[in-house]
Amino acid sequence: MSQRKLNIACAGLGRMGARHALNFANRTPRADLVAAFTPDPKEKEWAATALPNTKVYDDYDEMLKHPGLDAVIVATVTTAHAPQAIKAIEADKHVLCEKPLSTSIEISQSVVDAAAKKPHLKVLCGFSRRFDASYRQAYERMDQGAIGRASVFRSQTCDKLDPSGFFVAYAEFSGGIFVDCNIHDIDLALWYFGQDSVVKSAVAMGITAVQPELRRHGDVDNGVGIVEFWGGKLAYFYSSRMMAAGQHDMSEIIGTEGKLAVNGNPIGTLVEMHEPNGVRREIPQDYYGRFENAFVTEANEFTAACLDNTKLPFKLSGAVQAVTIGCALQESLRTGQKIYFDETGRRIETPKL
Amino acid sequence: MSQRKLNIACAGLGRMGARHALNFANRTPRADLVAAFTPDPKEKEWAATALPNTKVYDDYDEMLKHPGLDAVIVATVTTAHAPQAIKAIEADKHVLCEKPLSTSIEISQSVVDAAAKKPHLKVLCGFSRRFDASYRQAYERMDQGAIGRASVFRSQTCDKLDPSGFFVAYAEFSGGIFVDCNIHDIDLALWYFGQDSVVKSAVAMGITAVQPELRRHGDVDNGVGIVEFWGGKLAYFYSSRMMAAGQHDMSEIIGTEGKLAVNGNPIGTLVEMHEPNGVRREIPQDYYGRFENAFVTEANEFTAACLDNTKLPFKLSGAVQAVTIGCALQESLRTGQKIYFDETGRRIETPKL
Amino acid sequence: MSQRKLNIACAGLGRMGARHALNFANRTPRADLVAAFTPDPKEKEWAATALPNTKVYDDYDEMLKHPGLDAVIVATVTTAHAPQAIKAIEADKHVLCEKPLSTSIEISQSVVDAAAKKPHLKVLCGFSRRFDASYRQAYERMDQGAIGRASVFRSQTCDKLDPSGFFVAYAEFSGGIFVDCNIHDIDLALWYFGQDSVVKSAVAMGITAVQPELRRHGDVDNGVGIVEFWGGKLAYFYSSRMMAAGQHDMSEIIGTEGKLAVNGNPIGTLVEMHEPNGVRREIPQDYYGRFENAFVTEANEFTAACLDNTKLPFKLSGAVQAVTIGCALQESLRTGQKIYFDETGRRIETPKL
Amino acid sequence: MSQRKLNIACAGLGRMGARHALNFANRTPRADLVAAFTPDPKEKEWAATALPNTKVYDDYDEMLKHPGLDAVIVATVTTAHAPQAIKAIEADKHVLCEKPLSTSIEISQSVVDAAAKKPHLKVLCGFSRRFDASYRQAYERMDQGAIGRASVFRSQTCDKLDPSGFFVAYAEFSGGIFVDCNIHDIDLALWYFGQDSVVKSAVAMGITAVQPELRRHGDVDNGVGIVEFWGGKLAYFYSSRMMAAGQHDMSEIIGTEGKLAVNGNPIGTLVEMHEPNGVRREIPQDYYGRFENAFVTEANEFTAACLDNTKLPFKLSGAVQAVTIGCALQESLRTGQKIYFDETGRRIETPKL
Repeated sequence: MSQRKLNIACAGLGRMGARHALNFANRTPRADLVAAFTPDPKEKEWAATALPNTKVYDDYDEMLKHPGLDAVIVATVTTAHAPQAIKAIEADKHVLCEKPLSTSIEISQSVVDAAAKKPHLKVLCGFSRRFDASYRQAYERMDQGAIGRASVFRSQTCDKLDPSGFFVAYAEFSGGIFVDCNIHDIDLALWYFGQDSVVKSAVAMGITAVQPELRRHGDVDNGVGIVEFWGGKLAYFYSSRMMAAGQHDMSEIIGTEGKLAVNGNPIGTLVEMHEPNGVRREIPQDYYGRFENAFVTEANEFTAACLDNTKLPFKLSGAVQAVTIGCALQESLRTGQKIYFDETGRRIETPKL
Repeated sequence: MSQRKLNIACAGLGRMGARHALNFANRTPRADLVAAFTPDPKEKEWAATALPNTKVYDDYDEMLKHPGLDAVIVATVTTAHAPQAIKAIEADKHVLCEKPLSTSIEISQSVVDAAAKKPHLKVLCGFSRRFDASYRQAYERMDQGAIGRASVFRSQTCDKLDPSGFFVAYAEFSGGIFVDCNIHDIDLALWYFGQDSVVKSAVAMGITAVQPELRRHGDVDNGVGIVEFWGGKLAYFYSSRMMAAGQHDMSEIIGTEGKLAVNGNPIGTLVEMHEPNGVRREIPQDYYGRFENAFVTEANEFTAACLDNTKLPFKLSGAVQAVTIGCALQESLRTGQKIYFDETGRRIETPKL
Repeated sequence: MSQRKLNIACAGLGRMGARHALNFANRTPRADLVAAFTPDPKEKEWAATALPNTKVYDDYDEMLKHPGLDAVIVATVTTAHAPQAIKAIEADKHVLCEKPLSTSIEISQSVVDAAAKKPHLKVLCGFSRRFDASYRQAYERMDQGAIGRASVFRSQTCDKLDPSGFFVAYAEFSGGIFVDCNIHDIDLALWYFGQDSVVKSAVAMGITAVQPELRRHGDVDNGVGIVEFWGGKLAYFYSSRMMAAGQHDMSEIIGTEGKLAVNGNPIGTLVEMHEPNGVRREIPQDYYGRFENAFVTEANEFTAACLDNTKLPFKLSGAVQAVTIGCALQESLRTGQKIYFDETGRRIETPKL
Repeated sequence: MSQRKLNIACAGLGRMGARHALNFANRTPRADLVAAFTPDPKEKEWAATALPNTKVYDDYDEMLKHPGLDAVIVATVTTAHAPQAIKAIEADKHVLCEKPLSTSIEISQSVVDAAAKKPHLKVLCGFSRRFDASYRQAYERMDQGAIGRASVFRSQTCDKLDPSGFFVAYAEFSGGIFVDCNIHDIDLALWYFGQDSVVKSAVAMGITAVQPELRRHGDVDNGVGIVEFWGGKLAYFYSSRMMAAGQHDMSEIIGTEGKLAVNGNPIGTLVEMHEPNGVRREIPQDYYGRFENAFVTEANEFTAACLDNTKLPFKLSGAVQAVTIGCALQESLRTGQKIYFDETGRRIETPKL
């Protein structure tokens, strides 16, 4: 095990960027957060206090030239993910890019292509749930044969209702609810069903229960999709922007001999409150509240893979598959049509039964 | 409240018939189970001991002539439901008919039509979950406004794996998994969204994970369907024949301001076993294990409605709507196509957006 | 199996009496509730409607003479339990007596003595939890060896706070919280540890958190007791009158190789409510809400034992042991002293180690 | 906020020592683990790899002289806690001492006395549960008045059965199960009831269900104790060495208007396994599995308090109170007698009522 530390920089210090930055600065012993990029004055001010040992750049290209820099976290807005990731790869840096690589399949593929040219670099798409202890335990149990053959996968990403309606403006660039939220669930389906699973068909429906304005962007606040894979596997997904109690992301892997449920019963702390109207528990309020530890694990494992030249836990190309399926669901939502694919995963017009 | 008792007869003493018969004989104080019909020698033998005060007939028509008979439970095979129910109605008997009235929409409608001609009779389709205390509490909470506007409904009917493969032979007449299992969930959607909800589109997919032979009957052992209703409401359903732990039927009513989950965590007794490999609980093994009390309530409420001439808790016509949607899902499963309906619930070929 | 029915009468139509009466009238197919006794005008009025086939007597002795009477339920105030039970036994009736037989050990014993003279009669003390499906499943699991040797027993009887303070007046005759509430838990300890378990020592402490007036009767609203049995077994009990959420009676049987928990997580219906401040469920509000089914089972099993002359599930003498231990805890609470017993269960002044 | 780091050393690199060392080395950004002490060759070997930046000393006194050392963690065997803590205090180091300070009340007090002479130093007894997010949330809720007046406290520390019987040898120096295990629960009682709560009486009983050899050390493998505090508050404790499923430490704070339960339902990950015999979850296997995050918080908060000269979250003197109560329970266990204290917390022979 190398004793030297990984010099890493964080592009973007917004909500997720700040969390990544703090995790690499304070909770990743083998990494030093040496640089960050943000043009935003508030973020800069925050960094001055919170990241005292990190040099903050106004310019992404300048940041890439930071002396001794080994790796870059890309945590800017989605549209910047791909160009910044590609620049970093071309500058010979390892890259941890927030999901999705892009809301476009082609652009996502271009990141994969860029990475393929530099096989010595570690390029990771930040599917945080892959680093979550619960999802990993479920995978291990499945892998040990505990549920027979995994056949049906159910998964949901459900956000607490944000009454500010922030997510309406956000929908303009998010790629839509299936690409923005269910991308995680789709990636999990690919994990549990096998990275080489090939989509056969996809269909989705949705409603705007709280934000009719989402229709302007072809989006919804509650969506349900079904995805069939070649080989007799079925996945279905739910995403919502209107949970009252908090974030509730959960999954079930249903096999021929058993089922594994992950986070069927969300919990915040281990406190249960017995009150005059019953027994109550609080639950995580947002994505980070549920997955904080997974992000820390991600930071540490990415760092170790870079320093020790070991394999990342999953392939970058899966990110393209996930976006492909997410976009198919989003398209089905808009057009009302079912989308079909052949055994190679190519779009076809009529079903191949 | 009338002090006299309802004289009722039970047609069919198979699995469900025997349960209905015992419930009316022993757990429905205001009813007397005076007669039963079965041609099956084993069932007759069973009845001789278990139903000492009940006269058993070989012939359904003879049974209908039993002196003083007020009402009939129809719990024979599905194909017999409609003709027997209609005969009973024509003979001026109240009817509690097991679900579904028929796997055919037209035949189901013929029962409704027959009942419409005799408005003084109580004719009930046995959607047992409508009598379940938990589903009722959820309805009350929703009705009180506790979750805002109900918008998304998720519901599943999942049977314990029967390794005998009984359900393969059964599939020939069951109407398929969406008509046989999810009919309950569809009925619940109509309850929670409002009895007059009109289906807008339906799509389904499925796999045969444990019983490929089901394909012969156009059926699957795991199915997922999505149903959209006019007015911006969405329901999705899952049914399965391969649960390892037992029966797991559950539902969620998701509103703009809250969610109600019914049986998210199935339990058998209140015992938790702390064992070397963790904490374990058993769960109900079959449908009756979950809904036994609901069937008793059904028997008592049906009896009271007949004796006191009070309203049944839901309309018979809903049974036709439920079969219509179940058949649409089954058709979508077979053809791979999405099915569309107009605002009056009439089938149309292309979507009306 | 006898086809004739048990003619039973119910003494007392108060809270518990009315429940017993209804259960025998409506939910015990093999019994007819032919008579009842109550001097209370309101209870009589209630009975006129609710028990149309039951003759109501003003006088207990007259009721005992009801023609053809086979059995009596004693559900009057605690002080009347023993004399009425003894009278019924002397009149050759089977008896189901509500717990406790008496708050006095000697008087309790006198009921046992009376019963011993009429071995053909069934005399049952209504320890309802013995008929509860969950407690029974726990017993079976233990009996099958699932937890090794049962060694520690924890059990609590916790009532919802009754702000009317009814329980203060009630304390005058209840025998105190350990005799009134924990008697059930003590009986369970005797069941799980074996009916012949002999108490070795007992100690209790308590506080009056909500009703200081209880001190007048030497009672408390929260009590904790520890009871050691000869042979290396330990039980501890908690009782409370101030639960906010509802009734919470629970038990744990802790063995050398596992633990069985009964009702660690109380539930009302199977509904979980996801609300802005978390996930909530309601719980039973009173003892009957938790144990209703157990009372129905008790009624049916008592009836069957009387009609078929089969054994009752537990011996009447256990009721004296339970009161003995309950009284020892109550005495320890009052005096602050630990109470000791020898290997035969006789009180001794100094510990025998 | 000071930017400089705390130079800390860890005495003892056994089970708990190694964990503290790693937490300060890798998960406490504001601290540098500059030194450690262990005479054990295996621990030294481990440190050479796991703590590359830490100088390991054979001699505790030498370690104290490490240049620039600010603070010491004492995580050696219990008998060494007090002398090493006192030496560190005398050498002007901040101290985080593992619990208990000592199994002797007098020796525990001597650490408090030593600390009192150096008020500029931070001296913390490592009651890890005080740093646990769940216990803290429960405290906040209580402090906000959510449960009325906290009146009864129940708490247990239950270890997974270690079939090696390690805990028998361990019992020789552990002070006994109430001092070793329930000390945490006693400390929690003092936290929730108020640090100035004064014990009024204590009584305990126990059994040796799995390890009769424990009797040699006057100890048991299952113990139950009740502690009354002046002012009408009651606590009861259970400790066990024979849990089958894993570690189960839990607490309930019962108030006049509500109850807070902490870890009533232990969980490992968020995975639930649906298997042919039911639904199962795994639970933490040991104390650290349950409280790992609390130890990290402890490390970070202790560090911050030293660097920023802020208050520690609780007073050192509480550790003496906790040992006093633990020893009283242990004495009661051995003698069979109840132990009494006056309003000042002084031992008295006969109860003061």
